[in-house]
Amino acid sequence: MERLKEEVYRANMELPQHGLVVYTWGNVSAVDRESGLVVIKPSGVDYATMKPEDMVVVDLDGKVVEGTLRPSSDTPTHVELYKAFPGIGGIVHTHSSWATSWAQAGRGIPCYGTTHADYFYGEIPCARVLTKEEVESAYEKNTGKVIIEAFEGKDPLSTPGVLCTSHGPFTWGKNAAEAVHNAVVLEEVAKMATRTEMLNPKAEPALSYIQDKHYFRKHGPNATYGQK
Amino acid sequence: MERLKEEVYRANMELPQHGLVVYTWGNVSAVDRESGLVVIKPSGVDYATMKPEDMVVVDLDGKVVEGTLRPSSDTPTHVELYKAFPGIGGIVHTHSSWATSWAQAGRGIPCYGTTHADYFYGEIPCARVLTKEEVESAYEKNTGKVIIEAFEGKDPLSTPGVLCTSHGPFTWGKNAAEAVHNAVVLEEVAKMATRTEMLNPKAEPALSYIQDKHYFRKHGPNATYGQK
Amino acid sequence: MERLKEEVYRANMELPQHGLVVYTWGNVSAVDRESGLVVIKPSGVDYATMKPEDMVVVDLDGKVVEGTLRPSSDTPTHVELYKAFPGIGGIVHTHSSWATSWAQAGRGIPCYGTTHADYFYGEIPCARVLTKEEVESAYEKNTGKVIIEAFEGKDPLSTPGVLCTSHGPFTWGKNAAEAVHNAVVLEEVAKMATRTEMLNPKAEPALSYIQDKHYFRKHGPNATYGQK
Amino acid sequence: MERLKEEVYRANMELPQHGLVVYTWGNVSAVDRESGLVVIKPSGVDYATMKPEDMVVVDLDGKVVEGTLRPSSDTPTHVELYKAFPGIGGIVHTHSSWATSWAQAGRGIPCYGTTHADYFYGEIPCARVLTKEEVESAYEKNTGKVIIEAFEGKDPLSTPGVLCTSHGPFTWGKNAAEAVHNAVVLEEVAKMATRTEMLNPKAEPALSYIQDKHYFRKHGPNATYGQK
Repeated sequence: MERLKEEVYRANMELPQHGLVVYTWGNVSAVDRESGLVVIKPSGVDYATMKPEDMVVVDLDGKVVEGTLRPSSDTPTHVELYKAFPGIGGIVHTHSSWATSWAQAGRGIPCYGTTHADYFYGEIPCARVLTKEEVESAYEKNTGKVIIEAFEGKDPLSTPGVLCTSHGPFTWGKNAAEAVHNAVVLEEVAKMATRTEMLNPKAEPALSYIQDKHYFRKHGPNATYGQK
Repeated sequence: MERLKEEVYRANMELPQHGLVVYTWGNVSAVDRESGLVVIKPSGVDYATMKPEDMVVVDLDGKVVEGTLRPSSDTPTHVELYKAFPGIGGIVHTHSSWATSWAQAGRGIPCYGTTHADYFYGEIPCARVLTKEEVESAYEKNTGKVIIEAFEGKDPLSTPGVLCTSHGPFTWGKNAAEAVHNAVVLEEVAKMATRTEMLNPKAEPALSYIQDKHYFRKHGPNATYGQK
Repeated sequence: MERLKEEVYRANMELPQHGLVVYTWGNVSAVDRESGLVVIKPSGVDYATMKPEDMVVVDLDGKVVEGTLRPSSDTPTHVELYKAFPGIGGIVHTHSSWATSWAQAGRGIPCYGTTHADYFYGEIPCARVLTKEEVESAYEKNTGKVIIEAFEGKDPLSTPGVLCTSHGPFTWGKNAAEAVHNAVVLEEVAKMATRTEMLNPKAEPALSYIQDKHYFRKHGPNATYGQK
Repeated sequence: MERLKEEVYRANMELPQHGLVVYTWGNVSAVDRESGLVVIKPSGVDYATMKPEDMVVVDLDGKVVEGTLRPSSDTPTHVELYKAFPGIGGIVHTHSSWATSWAQAGRGIPCYGTTHADYFYGEIPCARVLTKEEVESAYEKNTGKVIIEAFEGKDPLSTPGVLCTSHGPFTWGKNAAEAVHNAVVLEEVAKMATRTEMLNPKAEPALSYIQDKHYFRKHGPNATYGQK
């Protein structure tokens, strides 16, 4: 568990380094699938003074099992996703500027090019807005539920991120570091998609065979990108 | 008073660190409610050479009571706000790029998402333009007056900032540090709201129950964000 | 002359520090009115290795009188302006991104707010495009001529900058340092004016009495900004 | 070959320094025309740990002749270009944000001003999208082919760059360093062209005699820019 705390701490510290968070507006978690325990950033703690031992351990009901600080207020969302997506090991939530702007616009991000296709298969979906009842009864948990709903019939590891209407992005990956990597890519992709539409309001998504080529060049058994 | 000078000095120095000011285009003040004295940045002094002892002390009529330098030319605006808003302890004025663009456009910033709702309850208003007489008789004081007018029936601590038409933003808070914090948030929110409209010219403000949820998650007796 | 070389060198070095130039795309000069000599950056020399003694001295015909390097290819433009505007002591030319975009759009920058009004009185004009003959006969000199034409009936020190259609901005001031200061302000003003129009395509310039108030708060016998 | 490896290594390292790449999204190569060998960045290797000796040497069939790492997955594109454009010595591929946005919009970049004209003669073309068969048979090689097709009747050294639809930019030059220089310029030009269109949707390219003046001021026998 100490190693996972260290990993989650480091992943959290990468967020301000990549310019993805202002103040404390972000959080990273990771799950240990064997014990069913989740390590997550404490709520509202300053990145400048945060330490690995400040990370909070919760179980898959969101109950704190270790740590003296309160876990991130978004913990119930993280827990929901770990339960529904068995393949993922780390989750990131930020209010990064470009991705949040798409979320506020209530739009998924079309796959306009190969940068997107290298990491996210198809459109990055925008989860529907929550109902009044969903917000008032269990806001953070239901945020997880609508994300899961948006991935019905989809593989969450092929499209490792989502936008929540009026809110902001979540990304994930096999572990905390990969989830952060995908958060960086999402922000870059969101920025370029915005500019693409400025330059061509009728821009079309990349043709499907180009999307396939790039996605499978980096993923799956026939991947040719990187070192073996 | 020396401690307040130190606080105001530090808050002023945060403005260039957060990229909110170019050259000397900004000022921070704080009030000591007991003595009724206000500490404020001197006018047109370079951030690189400014020292805590350069801060100027004025009373609530704007009269200098301590300090060898001239106070910020915006001092009468600060004083007006301290008199009208008894709950505030610090004020910031900048020409930060995104917020100033909204002010120049003469528009308040709609609450498009939870980043906004976490700090500002509802739209961030845009104070009306001053009349010719108001400008020529007492420009800086009347700038304060139209801000106060824009908050009739509103709680200035729930929406701790405003845009002045053709001019730029003012923010405030319980003290100078919180006022700077809100200036950083306002700039970020102004940036994302602009991009939201680029992506969806028909974007609607976040639903009121989502705004409420986020605002009250961070503020008031039932707040759950951060550490106790 | 050595002191002026040092001043011009320092002013040139400020351009990359303020993010106004990429590679060698900019130049600063200053004039010594007594001797009628102009000190200017050498052409195409890297900022990283440039030294004060590399500055080139030319007379008001643009003839090199001191220095082993070629002067900036824009020297004839600078010389023309020094001859036509007797009050100015320093000139800056850059391809800074936002100002250049206005120049490429062929538009002057309307005075949308007080940041602009504090430094530039009224619209920052866009000089007309040169004719084929003007380009082919004496391009750099005629660039100066059309700038002068754009200031007919205007005071160049009240509006210390201009955009050249399809090209980029020139700014000036009482000396090289002030010309650089105005180049930084112009870029900031150009950025905010662009965003103002994004937010409100029907945005109107600030009312004239507000422009006057701000301009004369900083300039002229009744200025109240800064320290005496 | 060791000197070329060093050159290619250094040119690769300039990409993150100029903000042109995120993670490993870019590659630089150079050719030794005498031996017909190409030195290129290895695939997916982190810039922070990359060393000159990691550079891979391939022949003009793309076969590795030296090095223990896999060459960039874009190697067949580089090789195609070296074979078709005998005057070029270095090639850069990035996903730099502004240029990629034009590529995703499927548009060439009009020459809106002298910054563009100083380096690229006329419009920077956008190569056509590949057919399904071209993608599936030999994607990277055919990417080279459509670039070559876009330069039919054009001099690749006068317009040293291209956009690939739905993908991103390639630039080149006499050597690796010049190719990187052109990649930086392309990104700057792409940014300013976007903003030009925001400010004036009916903006026209710079007049041809202005484009000629600037291009030939910097290139060819009558160049007057820089030191002799």
